[in-house]
Amino acid sequence: MKIGLLGHGTVGSGVRKIIDEMNTKEISQLEISKILVRYEKDITDERMTVDIYDIVEDPDIDVVVECIGGDEPAFSYVKAALFNGKHVVTSNKKMLVNHLGELLETARTRGVRLKYEAACGGGIPWMSNLDRTKRIDDIESFRGIFNGTTNYILSKMSNEGSEFAVALKEAQDCGYAEFDPSDDIDGMDTAYKVILSSCKGFGVLVSMQDIDIYGIRYISARDIAYACTHDYVCKLIGTGVKSNDGISATVIPTFVPKQNLFATISANFNAIESASRTLGKMTYVGQGAGCYPTAHAVVQDLIDLMYKQDIEVTSGESTRIDNKSRVSSFYVRSINLDCIQDMIEERIDEDTCITKKMSFVKLTSMIKTLEDDAVFVAEVMHDCM
Amino acid sequence: MKIGLLGHGTVGSGVRKIIDEMNTKEISQLEISKILVRYEKDITDERMTVDIYDIVEDPDIDVVVECIGGDEPAFSYVKAALFNGKHVVTSNKKMLVNHLGELLETARTRGVRLKYEAACGGGIPWMSNLDRTKRIDDIESFRGIFNGTTNYILSKMSNEGSEFAVALKEAQDCGYAEFDPSDDIDGMDTAYKVILSSCKGFGVLVSMQDIDIYGIRYISARDIAYACTHDYVCKLIGTGVKSNDGISATVIPTFVPKQNLFATISANFNAIESASRTLGKMTYVGQGAGCYPTAHAVVQDLIDLMYKQDIEVTSGESTRIDNKSRVSSFYVRSINLDCIQDMIEERIDEDTCITKKMSFVKLTSMIKTLEDDAVFVAEVMHDCM
Repeated sequence: MKIGLLGHGTVGSGVRKIIDEMNTKEISQLEISKILVRYEKDITDERMTVDIYDIVEDPDIDVVVECIGGDEPAFSYVKAALFNGKHVVTSNKKMLVNHLGELLETARTRGVRLKYEAACGGGIPWMSNLDRTKRIDDIESFRGIFNGTTNYILSKMSNEGSEFAVALKEAQDCGYAEFDPSDDIDGMDTAYKVILSSCKGFGVLVSMQDIDIYGIRYISARDIAYACTHDYVCKLIGTGVKSNDGISATVIPTFVPKQNLFATISANFNAIESASRTLGKMTYVGQGAGCYPTAHAVVQDLIDLMYKQDIEVTSGESTRIDNKSRVSSFYVRSINLDCIQDMIEERIDEDTCITKKMSFVKLTSMIKTLEDDAVFVAEVMHDCM
Repeated sequence: MKIGLLGHGTVGSGVRKIIDEMNTKEISQLEISKILVRYEKDITDERMTVDIYDIVEDPDIDVVVECIGGDEPAFSYVKAALFNGKHVVTSNKKMLVNHLGELLETARTRGVRLKYEAACGGGIPWMSNLDRTKRIDDIESFRGIFNGTTNYILSKMSNEGSEFAVALKEAQDCGYAEFDPSDDIDGMDTAYKVILSSCKGFGVLVSMQDIDIYGIRYISARDIAYACTHDYVCKLIGTGVKSNDGISATVIPTFVPKQNLFATISANFNAIESASRTLGKMTYVGQGAGCYPTAHAVVQDLIDLMYKQDIEVTSGESTRIDNKSRVSSFYVRSINLDCIQDMIEERIDEDTCITKKMSFVKLTSMIKTLEDDAVFVAEVMHDCM
């Protein structure tokens, strides 16, 4: 199978190395025939080109692998490849989420596949196992730690009692967080993965504005200390739940009981759990990022394409979002707590409380009434596994 | 695809229900045409028969699913099915381990497949994900909690401070342990699963006598209390490690640090971790037993056969076993500790100690010198994830 590789950065070079260097029966049937790089000066290999048309218009290329990242030009290149009848494998979650409906439709009409195992959960075979489980079961729900950057920050804060700004700076210094960490710390990156998991697991298109998203930008060492003394560990959890009324989709920092599996997930690891009728709860734990694990996931997609081992492209229908049915209690820290006096179950101190049980819809409208830009909210998880 | 189902007990009836009741595209292509039951009085469905030849000699049947359990007649039936050119799916680990080389060879010469996802890790897609990982990587090692009965007993002892006999009795009363629990509590069941995982992961045949096996028959509440006060949780862990010198295979109660994922695995769940070059560490957590999870795994094997989605039958070569290279320190409780004075790192009290670091080969010869039938041994795990 002939592959055109777009991008030769961390993930792209990992894909090239795995295909060039590994020796299995499957790998020996994969061949990278062209590699798109940005500048003439980047050309270090005779397969490299700076011209995208060399790849998307090459009739010998069966699959285009997109590892450029960002929205453009990645989107235009992927669209052109699909339009020209080439399968596409991508690790680019943000571009996917921005254009998911259009790309799925193009793939469907051109009779090719769009695969994105590496865009969600790094090396974890999450997408392929969702496909596998769906051969028998309906997926009822999923939840997980989908973002390594915030998990690194929260782990640092828990283990060392450090403040958010200090832990973020360390994450940036170690290369775990970007210069502008907003997508990670505001929960957007986790929301992208909730959208991709909902598309694969439930066969529906969820949009960003449908998800109740709470991030960790305003978390403080005090919040972590409260969680710790009450035998919780704070993790950023993305969740999708299917009900009769639609899909509930949320991203929120969560106080997880210490004896829960999620509490043990350390810095760069992700953990994702699905629930379905006959299989029950099934959890996958692995490296959520990194050159080789992510490249491994890309190459697995390529082998699935070669073996025609993937189910049809989901139609990706839009769906009704229903965040009314998921009910929980919440930890809230705000200088304006007095505005929500009647929703408080337990006042911890002047600016922190545990709320009564309420739905996410109710929570979000309550948080608006606080008129506090620096409010921190966490869900309190009660089940243990 | 036409299926002959042998046995209609817990797993067999689960397989029938999933295939009869679930509605996916894949399930609709599976058809159970005959079901073997033991006695005429068990016949409740027109597909049922008491005659094995009705199934293994039916030219229309493509696959035989064996859910009888035990060695005979299961082995003869499976052998006959393979010999007659039918694929076999089985959940019967003990029968498999007793005859693995012979069955693999029969399958190979008759050009059919022998699949056993459900025999190891219940509903966890462990075998299929080993196959998947091997399309790119060599499996370097695996380890896991493979046995629900001992995990239930150890969890009870940890949570309630109860003695082994009390916890075992409760496990028996709840149906988690059999009347004769020897296979579980002596570590044999875990060893079977280490053999099946080694066959799939490393492509080699390991025999029972090659594995250093320590069980939990002689564990006491004191041992659990020691683990707990030192921030460990005791779990029965099966391990396989590939090295230049061969395969190391062990089963041993292990003091796992509380912040390790394995420490959070509750009663009926299993957790299995693999390590490989590009994917790194990957852990699967799910229900290790139960009617539906196990039946789910059987049906996944059937769908893989239908889609021809499985790699070739492993040749199952014998291998050199090398338990010299795995080195650890151990907790030992014995009335004869004085015999091994020079191997003790830390004496805890009269009859318990932590040993110096040593290989499993050294450990096993040392334990023999104790001449104590009721010795309890646990490995002390030092890594955290």
